[in-house]
Amino acid sequence: MNHIDRPHYPLFNEADSAEIVNARIGPNVASRTRQVAEAVVRHLHAAVKEIQPSHEEWLAAIQFLTDTGHMCTDWRQEFILLSDVLGVSMLVDAINHRRPDGATENTILGPFFVDGISVSTHGTNICHDGKGEPLVLRGRVIDIHGEPVKDAIIDVWQTNDDGFYDVQQKGVQPDGNLRGKFETDSEGKYWFRTVKPRDYPIPDDGPVGRMLRTLGRHPNRAAHIHFIVQASGYETVITHIFAPDCPYLAEDTVFGVKESLIGNFELTDNEKEAASLGFPSPFWSVRQDFVLKPSD
Amino acid sequence: MNHIDRPHYPLFNEADSAEIVNARIGPNVASRTRQVAEAVVRHLHAAVKEIQPSHEEWLAAIQFLTDTGHMCTDWRQEFILLSDVLGVSMLVDAINHRRPDGATENTILGPFFVDGISVSTHGTNICHDGKGEPLVLRGRVIDIHGEPVKDAIIDVWQTNDDGFYDVQQKGVQPDGNLRGKFETDSEGKYWFRTVKPRDYPIPDDGPVGRMLRTLGRHPNRAAHIHFIVQASGYETVITHIFAPDCPYLAEDTVFGVKESLIGNFELTDNEKEAASLGFPSPFWSVRQDFVLKPSD
Repeated sequence: MNHIDRPHYPLFNEADSAEIVNARIGPNVASRTRQVAEAVVRHLHAAVKEIQPSHEEWLAAIQFLTDTGHMCTDWRQEFILLSDVLGVSMLVDAINHRRPDGATENTILGPFFVDGISVSTHGTNICHDGKGEPLVLRGRVIDIHGEPVKDAIIDVWQTNDDGFYDVQQKGVQPDGNLRGKFETDSEGKYWFRTVKPRDYPIPDDGPVGRMLRTLGRHPNRAAHIHFIVQASGYETVITHIFAPDCPYLAEDTVFGVKESLIGNFELTDNEKEAASLGFPSPFWSVRQDFVLKPSD
Repeated sequence: MNHIDRPHYPLFNEADSAEIVNARIGPNVASRTRQVAEAVVRHLHAAVKEIQPSHEEWLAAIQFLTDTGHMCTDWRQEFILLSDVLGVSMLVDAINHRRPDGATENTILGPFFVDGISVSTHGTNICHDGKGEPLVLRGRVIDIHGEPVKDAIIDVWQTNDDGFYDVQQKGVQPDGNLRGKFETDSEGKYWFRTVKPRDYPIPDDGPVGRMLRTLGRHPNRAAHIHFIVQASGYETVITHIFAPDCPYLAEDTVFGVKESLIGNFELTDNEKEAASLGFPSPFWSVRQDFVLKPSD
């Protein structure tokens, strides 16, 4: 007769399931790793205990995660889309970018930023395909005391009037269409020409799109222009400016809209100014300042 | 000047993030779908708020899920492995198979069950590769009142003594090695010959294996034989019998061990019985009854 080893760890039971799993974490695991793992297991088990999934529902969840993984390629990140439409990306951004009142708020980066664009002169028109309603954007970068921030770098990008970024339509749109970089002058000022942004759907031909349809949700993002504003000594701002008349303003499928990021869009009927800009009249005019907080 | 549409839904804020996401679920969504989605979002946001991941940690989570998805193929299900090692598979099983005291408990099915094996005569030796320590297993299938259940079907499968299931080593192991099906007689009895089960690691060359190492955990399953016991009018039992002397009994990496499933393994030194079984002496002898509850 062989002996029965005494358990060193408690055997599984439903009531204490999360604690039993977490008791297995080894003694030499880094404290942050332990903290994250314990929280994931605790919340995951709490969710399962509340939902009480059938075996078939559990298997459907496994299949959904598998399908989402299989959709990911070098140019499509379906798990980021999932994080976006569940509000997790915005929540992580909010947690990491709590700022004093008055400082420009962050919103999500999105997958279409391209690094390494060269700086253009003020006034450059970044629209190279001639589509959309002309728009001039002017503003300043200032600090939280209202002082100008000179030599700040402003990256800007948006979709064209068909709702696609240049990198989604290589060979269709001109290279670098609706993408630019500007540097503020000694008064913190910048300006450039572009077109009014439009709403567009996130890629919805995969598992995340199917999930949105199952939940009775649409895949549309509110119309916006992306910005990254960086200056030495200040916290970098990653944000959007939203068009105030977009029908999806309160229903952005990735929850990116904040009240302070709804832009001041004016339809300007001024033949003389239009002519100086090379625009027809009326055209859109936006005034947008960015307020930076010092880096910690 | 264009007008500003009034939001129909609240804009994002950190404090109310989960409620804001859940408010988007459409009015015509099935109530169970709504219930599951709301719980997932609520627990997910609670986890993020507790963990407060940095952007880099969030990206590492996205990459882990992506890698796990990419590891999944027709013959490798890395998300089920993840569910297993986090105790979720056992929790879902426990929730769905609460049974009265005395009824045989369930444990996880695992990925290596093969349906459609034909029934063998009692006493058949299911070990076809000659490896391992011979073992005879005898028992009865009874109901919770102790009455025999005749014509019950018992599926059995286990790894060979190298720690692999036949389906993991096609062309290496004989087809159907250590896999069998038996039917109880009029007294509920069954018996068959096999070998003592051994511990073995789950596949740990993927993201789940890397996660286990990061958490200071080993990938080993406690030594076990799998069973599915089915009879008309009774709830099907999916379970294991564990070898009581296995060093991983209290550390099964998928949390499958329950006290009631630790088998009664006797090392039997009896030349006459050994000869009648075609075994050397001593050999292993296991007595295992299965107690079924009526189906609802």
